[in-house]
Amino acid sequence: MVSAETIVKFVAIVGPQGAITDPNDMTPYVTEWRDKWIGKTPLVLRPSSTQQVSDIMKLAFATDTKIIPQSGHTGLVGGGTPSSTGDEIVLSLNRMNKIVSVDADNNAITVEAGATLKSVQDAARDVQRLFPLSLASEGSARIGGNLATNAGGLNVLAYGNMRDLCLGLEVVLADGRIWNGLRALRKDNTGYDLKNIFVGSEGTLGIITRAVLKLFPLPQRYDTALIAVNSLEAALALFGLLKSSQLTSCELLPRIGMDFVTRHMGKSNPLPDHNWYLLVEYSDAASQYLQNVLERGTEFGLVIDAVIASSETQRQELWAIREALSESQKFEGGSIKHDIAIPVSQVPQFIAEATDAVVKFMPGARVMPFGHLGDGNIHFNVSQPIDMDKASYLSRWRDMNAVVYPIVSALNGAISAEHGIGILKTEDLRKVKSDVELELMRSLKQMLDPKNILSPGRVLPKI
Amino acid sequence: MVSAETIVKFVAIVGPQGAITDPNDMTPYVTEWRDKWIGKTPLVLRPSSTQQVSDIMKLAFATDTKIIPQSGHTGLVGGGTPSSTGDEIVLSLNRMNKIVSVDADNNAITVEAGATLKSVQDAARDVQRLFPLSLASEGSARIGGNLATNAGGLNVLAYGNMRDLCLGLEVVLADGRIWNGLRALRKDNTGYDLKNIFVGSEGTLGIITRAVLKLFPLPQRYDTALIAVNSLEAALALFGLLKSSQLTSCELLPRIGMDFVTRHMGKSNPLPDHNWYLLVEYSDAASQYLQNVLERGTEFGLVIDAVIASSETQRQELWAIREALSESQKFEGGSIKHDIAIPVSQVPQFIAEATDAVVKFMPGARVMPFGHLGDGNIHFNVSQPIDMDKASYLSRWRDMNAVVYPIVSALNGAISAEHGIGILKTEDLRKVKSDVELELMRSLKQMLDPKNILSPGRVLPKI
Repeated sequence: MVSAETIVKFVAIVGPQGAITDPNDMTPYVTEWRDKWIGKTPLVLRPSSTQQVSDIMKLAFATDTKIIPQSGHTGLVGGGTPSSTGDEIVLSLNRMNKIVSVDADNNAITVEAGATLKSVQDAARDVQRLFPLSLASEGSARIGGNLATNAGGLNVLAYGNMRDLCLGLEVVLADGRIWNGLRALRKDNTGYDLKNIFVGSEGTLGIITRAVLKLFPLPQRYDTALIAVNSLEAALALFGLLKSSQLTSCELLPRIGMDFVTRHMGKSNPLPDHNWYLLVEYSDAASQYLQNVLERGTEFGLVIDAVIASSETQRQELWAIREALSESQKFEGGSIKHDIAIPVSQVPQFIAEATDAVVKFMPGARVMPFGHLGDGNIHFNVSQPIDMDKASYLSRWRDMNAVVYPIVSALNGAISAEHGIGILKTEDLRKVKSDVELELMRSLKQMLDPKNILSPGRVLPKI
Repeated sequence: MVSAETIVKFVAIVGPQGAITDPNDMTPYVTEWRDKWIGKTPLVLRPSSTQQVSDIMKLAFATDTKIIPQSGHTGLVGGGTPSSTGDEIVLSLNRMNKIVSVDADNNAITVEAGATLKSVQDAARDVQRLFPLSLASEGSARIGGNLATNAGGLNVLAYGNMRDLCLGLEVVLADGRIWNGLRALRKDNTGYDLKNIFVGSEGTLGIITRAVLKLFPLPQRYDTALIAVNSLEAALALFGLLKSSQLTSCELLPRIGMDFVTRHMGKSNPLPDHNWYLLVEYSDAASQYLQNVLERGTEFGLVIDAVIASSETQRQELWAIREALSESQKFEGGSIKHDIAIPVSQVPQFIAEATDAVVKFMPGARVMPFGHLGDGNIHFNVSQPIDMDKASYLSRWRDMNAVVYPIVSALNGAISAEHGIGILKTEDLRKVKSDVELELMRSLKQMLDPKNILSPGRVLPKI
């Protein structure tokens, strides 16, 4: 446990306005947003500067105090929630939320780690630029967490994930040293690549305090369509036709998901009663490009029906269907989730095999695979059988995973495509990684956090 | 020195056809291609499999033998040439040159590290795909070296550098362990990013033996133009107009370079007597897009004259001018080179300041800045004063660097944009990196090569 004396020293670093000690005020910092994990902490620190973060880590290092860096606390794998033991101090970046500078000429933006994703998108748009990362939680998710989890989202197909969008970082190390790697260069071959060690390390190797991110020209026009197809094979073949450097999204939606969003979320499906749908969007494509591809897709028998957004309002309505998918599942009882990636060409095989296996494992389970077809990243969610008890369904989470993950591995896939490992998947990680890879990961952890005080127990499986 | 007994054991691993012990046959392995560095080795090993590379490193680790991994040996910073002490064994990957598999459906290709860049480009083209890395030395440069140096080249603007083009790696570690990270996924958030530690580490952290690389749709048309502009400011403003996701190259050429290639390389300049030129290329842009931009550029007074390639032959002729630039300098005596990167918007300021400083430092020195304007990567080469002795000019290499590099640093630039550090720039690295960054680099080296047997002395400055 953290001693009262140490707590007083931590509070002195940030001042009273930067510390929360009243348990009533701690709720959002210790409670995962879906109530999946509820932790405990003696103290929430909210530093206002990199120097304060550094001073906190120096004290933590000297006193062997465990620190959980926290950003928007919107993660899905429990990485940002303190454990229930009550010996981990939460270090929230939410007061370090400034846009430091916007450099439209060089397509770069420098921000503090606590800036919300939405505020970064807005600052870019103010200078006629695009920051392309786009997620359902963008209003509350913060850049530090986006970087720490290498966030993906809706536009990875054209713009890459957070790793690809990051030009430079400032990081406070476990012992309080500050690494200033805030570069805005497109090319830099001066020494080892340190930046990518921290991106995706989920708060276990260092605390990201500032970042330089890439901006892009703001698209002048979008062409967006919802397309009905008969089969996954047709969806994949159509993706092949659609693909160009202007195709910025290609999302897969299943019939059951369309049923859920019309039933529970007040959306209307402009193309009812088809097996599968693609929601596709081009940015700044040549006029008629989308129409021409759809005509060819129709000739080849791939496109059954399609609706092209004829206004920004219609475009938003189509996207609202996609964005409502995940939430719509809540109204159908428990949902067990698999955020997986496989080579794009094997998506139909994966969905067929995994669906068969799941239904055999639990008759009545309702498979709802959706997501980023263009990246091979499928959210293979499974809603409970209609008449089953929710709690007893959710108690089968790991058993269900054990049915699905071997199919992912057999297709050379990844058991976490964009959400990370956190505490949810550490044991699964042990099963899919080689000994050498786990050894290398442990060596990195030992090198950067020798006292194991940064997000201990996250990511790396116990030996 | 390596004992005779140890040499016999190394030879036994690869067999007689995989070992070179006759000094006459060693020349290409110990001689840098421009004769800038000439080394010495008791043995060149040419393994034919990852297992052999692993066995070599196990023996090297057990016997504290220094190993220099070598790929195409076309580098520019001396990283692949053994030192003159004669105690470093060369491990050439040039027999491991197979294209392992090409997966057009998933836009991925798996190759051995010794495959030439050209053979990878060709294998991609055979299935109607593009592997976009493109360099002057592509016929002899090999993928392992391209990865180890994070190669850049002519198409970084649209496709990124080698780091961006790499999906997965297989690496033999200093102690002989094999890390199999050969993944072909677009999204994978299962644990720390190990791949990017090895990309750009110049053979000092591990030996890359195989890689999975990204492929792209093969462009169906190119629009290529040589454009004459009056000033660097105009060139930069024009780049702003030209920029789109289809702009795959934007190269800067100076008047002096055009003079050199017409005088010495048998090229003709279709637009003689202008101060600066841009060579730009679009891939699969809308028809007339380039023409329209050039019209706007002319209206704004940015474009003085332009020629658009009207055939593939003309396109190749324009590119041949660009490709001849570097070699043309040889006919004008010694050339001192600076491969630097700065934020794109500061290219005019950098070239102006650095030119002033160089001419003040050495009156008569002929500045020839050219290269990848779109990436902010300028090859700031300086040809000797006409009547100076070549050797005494080249003896001023470091003094000249000392004039240019502070200007790079003041503009938050990098002293190596795409060539790396090797042995050429280790001391310069010490000046531009913070203590924390050098400590982190040393920790990585210590973690992965605790006996300092892999390319010792390269990249990291001596303490």
